[in-house]
Amino acid sequence: MVSETIRDLIRQADEAIREERFDDLMEFYTEDAVLVLRPGKEAHGKAEIKEAFIAIARYFNNSLVPAQGNMVMLEAGDTVLVLSQTFVEAEKKPDSEYPGERRATYVYRKVDGKWLCAIDNSYGTSLLDG
Amino acid sequence: MVSETIRDLIRQADEAIREERFDDLMEFYTEDAVLVLRPGKEAHGKAEIKEAFIAIARYFNNSLVPAQGNMVMLEAGDTVLVLSQTFVEAEKKPDSEYPGERRATYVYRKVDGKWLCAIDNSYGTSLLDG
Repeated sequence: MVSETIRDLIRQADEAIREERFDDLMEFYTEDAVLVLRPGKEAHGKAEIKEAFIAIARYFNNSLVPAQGNMVMLEAGDTVLVLSQTFVEAEKKPDSEYPGERRATYVYRKVDGKWLCAIDNSYGTSLLDG
Repeated sequence: MVSETIRDLIRQADEAIREERFDDLMEFYTEDAVLVLRPGKEAHGKAEIKEAFIAIARYFNNSLVPAQGNMVMLEAGDTVLVLSQTFVEAEKKPDSEYPGERRATYVYRKVDGKWLCAIDNSYGTSLLDG
């Protein structure tokens, strides 16, 4: 099932983040993917996204542990919208401003037979607050 | 700009809903689009989606007026995630259970040069509550 495949890809990507394997992490994204860094600030394309993840790891003093909770997936052929409870834990979190629990929205696309993340927005619809 | 194009398409689709032009409305969707009817209940493909809109119009006694408020769009090449404040007004609403204000998530895809709605989820991340 597609939803199982994507759930597993997200788990693998979270593992790559925890282990700071950022080249491996980039294999999960489309070439022109977008990552929301914070409201109003995005990274576009693999080079910017990789750089952003390195900066995020540094911000969390290399102790970032992302994990997903409950998920809902909406499938439309080669496009899937994932709604996911996301938990970000970091032992060495420098402050408490970074919200630990979020409702994320991810868009996956099937490109040449492979499911890849095209849109990575851990802020979900809370971007509308900005 | 892509975001202006998509905003205009959403406005046109809302107009088609208000005027109950359901064949015109189907022109805004991909062939394998998905529409969330309520948590856990989806319509897949144009035939099911059209049928669902006819049933929704009947439920609202043909007085449905959808409108969008603040929008945020995240672009990744031929794929766009739209986060939108959505208002659903209906003069002849049969009860008050149907929430009037929502935070919707739509996914648009560029297919043969045309932007089309692939995923229409007016419930946004609230589907995670279910």
